[in-house]
Amino acid sequence: MEEVDIKEIVENILYLADAKDEAMIRNIIVGLYPVDLAEIIHHLNEENSNYIFSLLDAETASDVISELDNISRDQIIDDLDEVRLSEIVDEMDSDDATDLVSDLPDEIAQKVLERIDKEDSEEVIELMTHEEDTAGGIMAKEFVAVNLQSTIDQAIQEIRAKSEEVEDIYYVYVVDDNNLLVGVVRLKDLILAKSNTTVSQIMIRDVVSVETTVDQEQVAKIARRYDLVAIPVVDKIGHLVGRITFDDVADVMEEEASEDIQRMAGIADEEEFRETSILRISQVRLPWLLVGFAGQLVCAYILHYFEASLNQIIATAFFIPIIMAMGGNSGIQSSTIMVRGMATGEIGLYDIKKRLFREIFVSMLNGITCGILLFLVVTFWLKQPKFGLILSSVLVFVILNASFIGALIPVVLKKINIDPAIATGPFITTSNDVLGLIIYLGLITIFIPYLK
Amino acid sequence: MEEVDIKEIVENILYLADAKDEAMIRNIIVGLYPVDLAEIIHHLNEENSNYIFSLLDAETASDVISELDNISRDQIIDDLDEVRLSEIVDEMDSDDATDLVSDLPDEIAQKVLERIDKEDSEEVIELMTHEEDTAGGIMAKEFVAVNLQSTIDQAIQEIRAKSEEVEDIYYVYVVDDNNLLVGVVRLKDLILAKSNTTVSQIMIRDVVSVETTVDQEQVAKIARRYDLVAIPVVDKIGHLVGRITFDDVADVMEEEASEDIQRMAGIADEEEFRETSILRISQVRLPWLLVGFAGQLVCAYILHYFEASLNQIIATAFFIPIIMAMGGNSGIQSSTIMVRGMATGEIGLYDIKKRLFREIFVSMLNGITCGILLFLVVTFWLKQPKFGLILSSVLVFVILNASFIGALIPVVLKKINIDPAIATGPFITTSNDVLGLIIYLGLITIFIPYLK
Repeated sequence: MEEVDIKEIVENILYLADAKDEAMIRNIIVGLYPVDLAEIIHHLNEENSNYIFSLLDAETASDVISELDNISRDQIIDDLDEVRLSEIVDEMDSDDATDLVSDLPDEIAQKVLERIDKEDSEEVIELMTHEEDTAGGIMAKEFVAVNLQSTIDQAIQEIRAKSEEVEDIYYVYVVDDNNLLVGVVRLKDLILAKSNTTVSQIMIRDVVSVETTVDQEQVAKIARRYDLVAIPVVDKIGHLVGRITFDDVADVMEEEASEDIQRMAGIADEEEFRETSILRISQVRLPWLLVGFAGQLVCAYILHYFEASLNQIIATAFFIPIIMAMGGNSGIQSSTIMVRGMATGEIGLYDIKKRLFREIFVSMLNGITCGILLFLVVTFWLKQPKFGLILSSVLVFVILNASFIGALIPVVLKKINIDPAIATGPFITTSNDVLGLIIYLGLITIFIPYLK
Repeated sequence: MEEVDIKEIVENILYLADAKDEAMIRNIIVGLYPVDLAEIIHHLNEENSNYIFSLLDAETASDVISELDNISRDQIIDDLDEVRLSEIVDEMDSDDATDLVSDLPDEIAQKVLERIDKEDSEEVIELMTHEEDTAGGIMAKEFVAVNLQSTIDQAIQEIRAKSEEVEDIYYVYVVDDNNLLVGVVRLKDLILAKSNTTVSQIMIRDVVSVETTVDQEQVAKIARRYDLVAIPVVDKIGHLVGRITFDDVADVMEEEASEDIQRMAGIADEEEFRETSILRISQVRLPWLLVGFAGQLVCAYILHYFEASLNQIIATAFFIPIIMAMGGNSGIQSSTIMVRGMATGEIGLYDIKKRLFREIFVSMLNGITCGILLFLVVTFWLKQPKFGLILSSVLVFVILNASFIGALIPVVLKKINIDPAIATGPFITTSNDVLGLIIYLGLITIFIPYLK
């Protein structure tokens, strides 16, 4: 439904841009949400998207920029002079402003920082000191905090004072005289409290917070675990320094899931879905293709090594694909469950041993099922029950081995602090291909005398 | 950090349970969050987890049950009589209560519904009429709504009246005399407004809402798109009937991502990460293994068909794995980008043509790179430059074909309303294996005369 609307609006805008009817275009875009404007800009060519963007006031422009994908954003920013850029950055929340300024060339970033509000530029400079993928790197400085001794009325006054700067307020944080985070007040409780009570009387004391250095994936896990709309961020000592809201947590979740999925498919670095550079896409995909290439050369060598066996029973070659593919598929199933289960936290390091045993039993069951089928096929197709028996035993063994490897490698990687997803897909598939082939041809060679 | 804590607590509880020191156990569990209690219960054996659960008051017990994974939950529920069950359900939010009651055997569900608050049971019965994976199926009836003519004071009174029932309030919804949703008021704006104004003066009129029948994946997309803490749910006519909060949206996101990842790995139905039944796990994994099995039998037949070519140049067999694997890997990369990009909405049906062309160019580039490498290997290893040339040309062609198929199939599936993830992984790998083998052996057979 939405997508059709966007398409229609894009078409109307193209028509009006041709007719140079700026008034009508303004009329259309004024009622749109920033995210919809961003979507429209993404679908326009460079000239038109820059034109539409130039019609936006600084506040809308800042919201739209925060919603744009990186590719469209870079293109829009390239077109802006530092005056317009500074106006836009001035309107942004500190986290979005920091993302934008970090992406600018140093010289322009410097100029923009000099032009914007002093308080804002100090915030941006502070936020830039944190690693990108940590709590400090994704937090914003826009929050409402009051002292422990404040009354309800004072808290409300503070909300009023910060109202313009902090668009969405969910909690009021409570700090002591040293700015240490000591509690949190939900707006609902603030509304229901009597005006002469103090915040310390209605605050929740057991506050879940994260330190600035915590990895963003961990932040998302904690926020999700305790269902927090916003999670406060503290420094090493416990001073309140920022907050991360649920929408940023959701962004992290989506980003991490996409990253995991891509890594499992053998895409080395994250590929932007809207990436347009063929070279860049090739670059992120080629490394694991080459690892696979090297692994398969090993397979070619193994086949060469067992040439005599292949020559003696040519049917051995027919079943190479089935043996390798069944091992590969089982390995991917096992590794996927482990990688995803560990990523969502549903499989803890605590449960590993039980899980590994379960994988062995499951693959035994599935291996035997497929083995029986293969035995029947070879017996009735090739009329070689002896060969069928050996072949199907090998299949069971290969599936068992592949599943175990598939389940084990992610655990090992996790233990040595490598993201299990990164090496799981192509690494496991390739190792299973090599191992499967050795097992297959090795056992066949041993059994050849009994087949004659 | 957390996980260590949980482990320690579990060990302490085991020790105390042995010593039958109920007072100390109560002492430990009273300070814990429901989600942590759920984690602990997951790690205890049946007897101990039922025992710990029996120590919880009805309110905590209801929160803990909502946090448990399905496996542990079913085990806990089996142990409860209908009196205790009713107490617990009475304390639950309507959406969680509905989930629980739906899972009970009909007879017990009936008894529980008779015992709980009439209003609550009516809500549960209404919620049970909606499909599980729709907005209606995941919404809760706990929300605060006031009439258009209400003053700020009246809105605050309504919040107070609903305060116990609705744990977390983010917005007050505004309805007209016919209960049609016409606006939404943020608590922040409520706090800052003068008490004699009406809600209609401060409400946001352009409310984003979803209909009860909208698929949960779509609900999550809309809530994410507009960064909504809670999204109101309306019936066909526009009456306000429920709300879905950000935490449920995040659950949907995580569930859908896990489902996609599993489907792409060839796991037919969703496998619970904590599933203990070997038979059940085998059941969800076997179908796509068997599809792969069938496909690989076709491969065996193709090899059998080309037996003469294989016999003439045995080296042809050595390179079967590399041709098939490189096609398979490229196909998975392309399909993964398409499936995930469409799932997150970053690749719209609008962008498809451009994306397909991009995939062709990328795979051409990567194919040629791998092809050159293969040519060098065959030339210097086997000293057969002519064979190397043919082999590497075939490789380029197979990679190109596999990527194109990998990118195209998800789009076709999406167009005919089948989840692209479901058939993507094993389906594409298997088709690419079959096609790759036919291309490889077909072309080699054609070129054999020139190799002699």
